[in-house]
Amino acid sequence: KINSERLWNTLHDTCEWGAEHRYGEKPTDTGMARLTLNDDDARVRRWFATEVQKLGCSLSVDQMGNMFARQSGRLNSAAPMIAMGSHLDTQPRGGRYDGILGVMAALEVLRTMKESGFQTDYDVGVVNWTNEEGARFPKSMCSSGVWAGAIPIQKAWDLRDIHDPSVTLRSELERHGYLGDISCSSDPTTGYPLGAHFELHIEQGPILPENNRSIGVVRGAQGYRWLTMTVHGKDAHTGTTPFSARQDPLLASSRMIAASHDIAKRHDALASTGIIRVPSNASTNTVSSQVTFTLDIRHPQDIVVHAVQDECLKAFEAIALQDGKGVSFDWSLDTDSPAVKFDDNCVASVQAAADQLVGRGKSMLMTSGAGHDTVYTSKHCPSAMIFVPCRDGVSHHPTEYCSPQDCALGTQALLEAVVHYDQF
Amino acid sequence: KINSERLWNTLHDTCEWGAEHRYGEKPTDTGMARLTLNDDDARVRRWFATEVQKLGCSLSVDQMGNMFARQSGRLNSAAPMIAMGSHLDTQPRGGRYDGILGVMAALEVLRTMKESGFQTDYDVGVVNWTNEEGARFPKSMCSSGVWAGAIPIQKAWDLRDIHDPSVTLRSELERHGYLGDISCSSDPTTGYPLGAHFELHIEQGPILPENNRSIGVVRGAQGYRWLTMTVHGKDAHTGTTPFSARQDPLLASSRMIAASHDIAKRHDALASTGIIRVPSNASTNTVSSQVTFTLDIRHPQDIVVHAVQDECLKAFEAIALQDGKGVSFDWSLDTDSPAVKFDDNCVASVQAAADQLVGRGKSMLMTSGAGHDTVYTSKHCPSAMIFVPCRDGVSHHPTEYCSPQDCALGTQALLEAVVHYDQF
Ligand SMILES: NC(=O)NCCC(=O)O
Ligand SMILES: NC(=O)NCCC(=O)O
Repeated sequence: KINSERLWNTLHDTCEWGAEHRYGEKPTDTGMARLTLNDDDARVRRWFATEVQKLGCSLSVDQMGNMFARQSGRLNSAAPMIAMGSHLDTQPRGGRYDGILGVMAALEVLRTMKESGFQTDYDVGVVNWTNEEGARFPKSMCSSGVWAGAIPIQKAWDLRDIHDPSVTLRSELERHGYLGDISCSSDPTTGYPLGAHFELHIEQGPILPENNRSIGVVRGAQGYRWLTMTVHGKDAHTGTTPFSARQDPLLASSRMIAASHDIAKRHDALASTGIIRVPSNASTNTVSSQVTFTLDIRHPQDIVVHAVQDECLKAFEAIALQDGKGVSFDWSLDTDSPAVKFDDNCVASVQAAADQLVGRGKSMLMTSGAGHDTVYTSKHCPSAMIFVPCRDGVSHHPTEYCSPQDCALGTQALLEAVVHYDQF
Repeated sequence: KINSERLWNTLHDTCEWGAEHRYGEKPTDTGMARLTLNDDDARVRRWFATEVQKLGCSLSVDQMGNMFARQSGRLNSAAPMIAMGSHLDTQPRGGRYDGILGVMAALEVLRTMKESGFQTDYDVGVVNWTNEEGARFPKSMCSSGVWAGAIPIQKAWDLRDIHDPSVTLRSELERHGYLGDISCSSDPTTGYPLGAHFELHIEQGPILPENNRSIGVVRGAQGYRWLTMTVHGKDAHTGTTPFSARQDPLLASSRMIAASHDIAKRHDALASTGIIRVPSNASTNTVSSQVTFTLDIRHPQDIVVHAVQDECLKAFEAIALQDGKGVSFDWSLDTDSPAVKFDDNCVASVQAAADQLVGRGKSMLMTSGAGHDTVYTSKHCPSAMIFVPCRDGVSHHPTEYCSPQDCALGTQALLEAVVHYDQF
């Protein structure tokens, strides 16, 4: 039985590194801004290394700074370890649970096993995946993606800090001493293969609370594609230029954003714009020359994601011609994360843990709305996830909250699922 | 007859101070970034002071840094001078003609008169109005507005540099020695009253070129109002938050911008959004918490400007409730510039000049789409404007261009209009 208090204290004590955005009076009433490989991320990494070594784990760091802590199993088998993994980096206005809970829960599982003298048959361990959020170096699930062979390492290394282009992910790995020597891959000879991957995570959505469930048995993740649209027009004076003479990229972008929402809604899919930018020298009385915006399209079926994208692009072409002299646009595909189905046996282990802890009435099978490192690990080892509810479904926000009870329940489920899978 | 070459060379030589945004190979193929009271603006002001003093003008500077150069008339009358005025500051990505042409043309008129020994009956002179663009210190036609009593001087002094809030308009006036001692007003005892105000300006729109006219006889300016809208929603994860649970201010803003365009179009008015901002920590997979955008509404009749504003706000209220859990919004009125009708006699003087120079077939009566210093002077002295075409109607852009012929024609018209009015 895991130690709920130790888990809670460890999680919040380590949030000292990166705490930001106070919203209440309690010491833990802050969000987090622990961006990948900033000084606070380096601090929590060093702390993590010390803690797992205290437990007698071996620690390996690969060329993306992914940290693998490993506890030997009873059989001294050469088989790859059963991993419990998530991430310690956060959004710039993030919370204290997204990713962090998964790593702290995994550590608590190892501590509980050690304390109670329990040994798994096979090796078990924890992974801290680098730059899951993609908030500082703009590629999410970045280093599990490299590990899975889905992202070329050079491309990941070359990612630039979105606010300071002189800094790359690789230069930050080097600065903090986290450019390890193991190849970042699942290759058994040069890399770090895993026998399985379990991830505890907050749901980040309202489905568990709305259905009054406390454990989500996650059998897969929806597909998503991130596009960046750039709409080109022409600077013009807002007072002297008739509508008919304009090429207004902000008007066109506005129509495009509204259209993408309406199209996605018809398909029961999601389409969202998080970022829109006009040039920094924009002014109230000048039609902007260019507008950039992001488009995030999601659905559990890839075919629907593609249909929404196609329909949006067709609608955008019509919109581009609609007003004045028209605008032009181009787009790039920044992320393509197809839908995944997790491993049946791993899902069964999570289901078994949930059945034992809360029963069928308090758990539910679900599909993850967000991408997670497990989406990538699932391509190279049996994987599954456990969701616990977070308050009002809010995440990527300072007030993100998961109760001590739910944190503990999820961690216990993680332990049971790993033990179940180890036996299997 | 004005000296076309001297005008052209003077204009471009002085654009050395603030030249920026090269777009072609000729020395003059750049735009300008001579923001109000930056070091280049101070340089061109010192040059202007020297030049008008060389001509024998007296120079007065008021408490907003407005510069009044005055040439005595033949009658040695105590009447206020007939002014030719415009501005030497530019947009951050501005051109070489907007405002600058008006001041250089006025100087050329004085040079021509001096050279040919011609004296007006009444005093004539040039005004360089401070911060017409409102690009650095965000209030356009700022110091003619103070002069006209429409903007309180303290408010103008307190305007902060939009990129460096530690700097105010007043602190920059002081730094460069342009905080003069004359009150900035048209008051005959404490301020600097004007007998009339004529302004030559590029049209900044496509109407003259489209109608193949070379002089616009400007009889007034349309009204406009600038609103800043702030739309409030809630941060949410784009992958895990169903549309029904969202409060998406960027989606709402997009619908508002599109709606404002459609509403203005129905009224034959203009509504434009130049700036839209999401928080700097926005990310692709987070619904933004807040969006700010500007709205610039224009029409020659104030009643229509107000009707468009009212209809927009009503539409925005409906849009705020339209998607998910709805958003809230508030707004502020940043500029309110009612429509103005210029003085009949001044307009007649411009018309007389145009008739003489190009005939009725090549000139046209028009209403200014943009605000100008003359909009404010017209409230306290008889005023009118002369427009000349600029290439493709483009202004507020580095490639803004007015041909040497059109610059000269406009300047000659300015001379003739002033002489005509002086006689009148
Ligand atoms: N869990 C999470 O926020 N992952 C980032 C990728 C995504 O937007 O789904
Ligand atoms: N001429 C000019 O650009 N004036 C600024 C105020 C306006 O936008 O009309």
